Amino acid sequence: MESTALTVRTGSQEVVVDLTRRCEDFLRGAGAGDGLLSVFVPHATAGVAVIETGAGSDDDLLAALEQVVPHGGPAGQGWRHHHGSPGHGRDHVLPAIVAPSMTVPVLGGAMALGTWQSVCLVDTNVDNPDRTVRLSYLAG
Amino acid sequence: MESTALTVRTGSQEVVVDLTRRCEDFLRGAGAGDGLLSVFVPHATAGVAVIETGAGSDDDLLAALEQVVPHGGPAGQGWRHHHGSPGHGRDHVLPAIVAPSMTVPVLGGAMALGTWQSVCLVDTNVDNPDRTVRLSYLAG
Amino acid sequence: MESTALTVRTGSQEVVVDLTRRCEDFLRGAGAGDGLLSVFVPHATAGVAVIETGAGSDDDLLAALEQVVPHGGPAGQGWRHHHGSPGHGRDHVLPAIVAPSMTVPVLGGAMALGTWQSVCLVDTNVDNPDRTVRLSYLAG
Repeated sequence: MESTALTVRTGSQEVVVDLTRRCEDFLRGAGAGDGLLSVFVPHATAGVAVIETGAGSDDDLLAALEQVVPHGGPAGQGWRHHHGSPGHGRDHVLPAIVAPSMTVPVLGGAMALGTWQSVCLVDTNVDNPDRTVRLSYLAG
Repeated sequence: MESTALTVRTGSQEVVVDLTRRCEDFLRGAGAGDGLLSVFVPHATAGVAVIETGAGSDDDLLAALEQVVPHGGPAGQGWRHHHGSPGHGRDHVLPAIVAPSMTVPVLGGAMALGTWQSVCLVDTNVDNPDRTVRLSYLAG
Repeated sequence: MESTALTVRTGSQEVVVDLTRRCEDFLRGAGAGDGLLSVFVPHATAGVAVIETGAGSDDDLLAALEQVVPHGGPAGQGWRHHHGSPGHGRDHVLPAIVAPSMTVPVLGGAMALGTWQSVCLVDTNVDNPDRTVRLSYLAG
């Protein structure tokens, strides 16, 4: 298995960061053939999603997540987790919905993504401007 | 690694399609023993879920998703993504909630599923009547 | 591939059970080096999440899930699935949101988890007090 840890700048806003190019670079450097790519975020307040970027869906996702895990808590009752910025408790529930782990099949060294799919880091946590993403390639 | 691409007919309605039998057929053809099965949908508007089928939960899931990602957008404010049928923006958020990737352990050539579990394609996109699902088996 | 089935006591309340220690024990027993750990729940009414435990987020998650898949059904319209305790239909939708499968990279025999991450069983089903979780390690 080949594995590396990327550093990703996420800043102090909720963001969806497209990692597709960096995954491709990693696979090329790993001399990948056929196998599985594991994309894993070693943080308790971020997730990985495979979605389309650049046509509004990244912002749509962040807006949808505000409904699913609102800053004000379930039914406006707040969150028990009370560290960090106001509403930060939601960031700790996010990874149960948008998991921090994604597995992508790799064929002939390339991810078997569809035309409109991108591998993305989803980070609603505004308190941590830099994030790590671990990429691991397991040959088949 | 053995890998194949299935074609799945989803038609023009929101559907949950049970792929369990086709996964079993693939594993048999691949001569699987112990390993991991990757089920991956190379589309930006569909996901994979392991749920019970045939007792109402497939329709329950589609109804629940209408609450999580409603056609009318978060808080009824619409979606930024504005291609396709009305409300299609929701289909592009779906894969962040119901991910397009699922990994199932395989033991002695069979998926280690529970009695009531089925591997399902979840497709709310009514504009694409045919879908591809990639199955990949990595031996352990 | 090394694989084992854990028995987990979940009782008759909705629970988030931290399995991190048991995953570590399994990897030690398997003589793990670099590879992938698959955590898979062979039940149709439970999921796996990687979240922080012990600071309120486990209860926050259960409260958030009551909003996403409420006992009363989508928009209070009930669930089609009508077996088990009142509202049990929601438990069958849960695995589409909190998937029963999680893959964690393993490096030098240890899961590459972040400081605040724990591997957890999420079980909202109050009718089944004992659960099985399958752990499988695939060497890289």
